[in-house]
Amino acid sequence: MAVNLVTPHPADLKPVAGVRLGVAEAGIRKAARRDLTVIELAAGSRVAGVFTKNRFCAAPVQVCKAHLPGGAVRALVINTGVANAGTGEPGLAHARATCAALARQIGVEAVQVLPFSTGVILEPLPVERLVAGLPRAVAGLRADGWFDAAHAIMTTDTLAKAVSKQVSIGGRTVTLTGISKGAGMIKPNMATMLGFLACDAAVSQALLDALVKEAAELSFNSITVDGDTSTNDSFILIATGAAGNAEITDAGSADYRTLRDAVVEVSIALAQAIVRDGEGATKFMTIAVEGGRDRDECRKVAYAVAHSPLVKTAFFASDPNLGRILAAIGYAGIDDLDVSALRVWLGNPDESVLVAEHGGRAASYVEEAGARIMQHAELTVRIALGRGGAAATVWTCDFSYDYVKINADYRS
Amino acid sequence: MAVNLVTPHPADLKPVAGVRLGVAEAGIRKAARRDLTVIELAAGSRVAGVFTKNRFCAAPVQVCKAHLPGGAVRALVINTGVANAGTGEPGLAHARATCAALARQIGVEAVQVLPFSTGVILEPLPVERLVAGLPRAVAGLRADGWFDAAHAIMTTDTLAKAVSKQVSIGGRTVTLTGISKGAGMIKPNMATMLGFLACDAAVSQALLDALVKEAAELSFNSITVDGDTSTNDSFILIATGAAGNAEITDAGSADYRTLRDAVVEVSIALAQAIVRDGEGATKFMTIAVEGGRDRDECRKVAYAVAHSPLVKTAFFASDPNLGRILAAIGYAGIDDLDVSALRVWLGNPDESVLVAEHGGRAASYVEEAGARIMQHAELTVRIALGRGGAAATVWTCDFSYDYVKINADYRS
Repeated sequence: MAVNLVTPHPADLKPVAGVRLGVAEAGIRKAARRDLTVIELAAGSRVAGVFTKNRFCAAPVQVCKAHLPGGAVRALVINTGVANAGTGEPGLAHARATCAALARQIGVEAVQVLPFSTGVILEPLPVERLVAGLPRAVAGLRADGWFDAAHAIMTTDTLAKAVSKQVSIGGRTVTLTGISKGAGMIKPNMATMLGFLACDAAVSQALLDALVKEAAELSFNSITVDGDTSTNDSFILIATGAAGNAEITDAGSADYRTLRDAVVEVSIALAQAIVRDGEGATKFMTIAVEGGRDRDECRKVAYAVAHSPLVKTAFFASDPNLGRILAAIGYAGIDDLDVSALRVWLGNPDESVLVAEHGGRAASYVEEAGARIMQHAELTVRIALGRGGAAATVWTCDFSYDYVKINADYRS
Repeated sequence: MAVNLVTPHPADLKPVAGVRLGVAEAGIRKAARRDLTVIELAAGSRVAGVFTKNRFCAAPVQVCKAHLPGGAVRALVINTGVANAGTGEPGLAHARATCAALARQIGVEAVQVLPFSTGVILEPLPVERLVAGLPRAVAGLRADGWFDAAHAIMTTDTLAKAVSKQVSIGGRTVTLTGISKGAGMIKPNMATMLGFLACDAAVSQALLDALVKEAAELSFNSITVDGDTSTNDSFILIATGAAGNAEITDAGSADYRTLRDAVVEVSIALAQAIVRDGEGATKFMTIAVEGGRDRDECRKVAYAVAHSPLVKTAFFASDPNLGRILAAIGYAGIDDLDVSALRVWLGNPDESVLVAEHGGRAASYVEEAGARIMQHAELTVRIALGRGGAAATVWTCDFSYDYVKINADYRS
C-alpha cells in the first residue's frame, strides 16, 4: 500500500534521445519475472554517479567505481534478485564477467559497461543465467523502454517509480526521464538503492559530476525508511548531449540553473516515490528542521525523529503521542541544545499547529487538533531549533505491521 | 511474551538492611493500579546515580541531579503513568513539590528526596493525586516490599524485574537487591529507564560513585530494544552500610572486588530482564563484537546490528538472512573497516557456526545450519573485526508484529 503514489502511464515517460532500454526474464532468483535490464547510451554520452558508503559495498558498486572514471560509458546492466554483496572475490569476478559479456554483444569494451545488482545479500550471483539472458534484453532495446525498465528493477517495491520532465535550454527542448527502485533498507548515504536519471542535454563532465552530488544530497540522501544503509545504493546521472543545445560549461549560467533545477526536481520526485512505497507505509512524513547552526545538525535531528520506531508507530496509529518527537530530538546528539528555545509544529496540507515550546507542551495546543491533523496521510513535523540559520528536510514513512510482515517474509 | 524471563518469587527477594519500600494506588493516569512507590533509606546510607543524556531530560531527572550531590538522601519516590518530561517549568515545580510533600511526612528535608517518573511524555504530572497517595505508600513501608515495588514501577512491562544476591565481605553477609522497569524506548545512554539497586555494604561514596558508572556501562548502557533513548533513564545504587562490614575504601581490595562483581552481576541481570521483556520480544540476542581497536568502535558495530530493523525482523522470522548483518556492520561508521578481515558467527547455547569471512559467505556455511540455530530463543551474533584487542557486548531483542501493536496502541 503506497502513500499517494501512482505509476505514470507509459505514454507519460518521454524517451531521452541517445538512450535505449531493454529487459528480460533471466531467472536470477525466481522464474517468470523480468529481472534483467540493459540501458544503452549513444557514443559521447556523459555519466556521473554516487554510490553507497557502506563498507560492505557490493561487487558491482566496486566495479562501477573502477569503470566510471574511464569516461566513455556506453551501457548499464541491472539485475534484481541477488545483490552480489558480501560475495568476496568471486562476486567481483561475476560483476566483471557481466560487463564483458554485454560489451561483446554491443561492440564496446568491458570498462564501458556499468553493472548494478539489487536483492538478497550474501548469496552468489548466478552469472551464467544472467549472461544467458543478455541477448534477449539487447534484442529488445528501444527508446520507449523506460516503463518496462522501471518495473524490471523492482524488488519489494509495490509500484514502479518513474518521472519525466521537459525544459527549454538554449532554445532546445531537453528531456529528463528517471527511474528508481527501493522500499526497504533505505537510508542512503551519498546515494540511494538504485536511481537512474537520463537527460539529453549537452553539459560538461565537471558540471555533471557536481550536479549528481548536489541532486543526491537534496533527494536520495534526504530519505529514510528504516535507517538501514544498503550495500548497493547507486544513483546515476546521464547526459547524452543529443538535445542539440550549446554545451553547458558555466555553473553560473541560466542554462545550468534550468538544468540543475529540473534534475533536482526529478531526483526529489524519484526519492520521495521510494518513501511513498516504503515497506508497509501508510503515512508520508516530512521532517523539516530549521534554525540550526549548520545543515549537519539539522539533518541529525531530522533523522533522529525519522528513525525513531516510537515516532513511526505513533504516526501509523494516527496517535498524537508527540512527546516521542521531543525525546528523539533530545537524543539526536546536539549536546548543547537548549530545549526551552525549541518549537515543534505538526501539520498536514490543510493546517498546522504549534505543539511544543518553552520546553513543554504549547499552551495553545489541544490534543483534538493533533488527532485531527494526523488523520491525513501527508504529515509534516516542523522543528525550529532556535540557534541559527541552517535548515534540512528529510522524508520518511511510518512503521506498520506490514513492515514487519514484509521483512519477516522476504526471501521465503 | 517475555523471552526466558521469570519474575522471582517474593521469598527470593532478600530485604536489604536499612531499606523499606511502600506502594500505593494514586490514580496518576489510570485508576486501580499501583503507580506510586516510596523507598525509604536509613540515615547514613550512601547513594550514587547515573541519568539519561537526553537533552529533553525529565523534570525529576533534573531535580535528582540537584539533590544527589547533597549526599544525605533518605527517600526515593517513583510514579508511573506520566513521565513529567517535556513539561517545562511547571514540571520542575511538580517534581519539587513531590519531594517536599514526602519529606514532610517522613521528617527529612526536601533535598534528601529523589523523585522519579516514567510514562507518557509531554503531559502534566497530576501532582495533587500523587501527593494525596503518599501517606498510603508511607504507611505501607516494609523491609520486604521489593516484590510489590517491582510491580508498581512497571509500565508496558509484562513481568516485574527483580534480582537478589548475597556475598560475604569482611566476614559479614552483604545483601544486594535490585529492581528495574522498561520494555520500550530502551537505548540507555549512561543509564536506563529505571533501575534501583540497594545493598547493605559499607562502602565509601567515592567508590560507590565509580561503581555505579562502571556497572551502568556494563549493563544498562549495553542494551537496546528500539534505539530510543528515554527522557527519564535513571539508575540508582544505594549502600546503606547496615551489613556491618569494615567500610570499603580501597578500589584494589578483595572486598571491593567482591562487591563490584556482585553489583555488576545483578545490574546485568536487571538490564537483560528489560531486553527479555522488550516490547513484542520473541528472541533474546547477544551481539558480541571483538577484535576492535577500541571499545567505542566495537559498541558502534554492535549497536548498528542491534538497531537494524532488517536484522531484527529476520530474527523474528527465524530467517538466516544474514547478509543484513553484514550490511549493518558495513554502515556502522568505521570508515577504514577491512571487510575481508572480518568474521561473523551465529550461535545459540548449543552450537555456533562461522557465517562469513573473506568478505563473503564462509565456504563451510550451509543455510540449514543457520536455520536450525535460529529456532532457539537465545541467539548470539559474534563479530570479529580483526583489527585490535578491544571488545564489547550489547543485548537486544527481535522486532515483531507485537512491537508495532504495543506502540501503536500505547496510551489508548
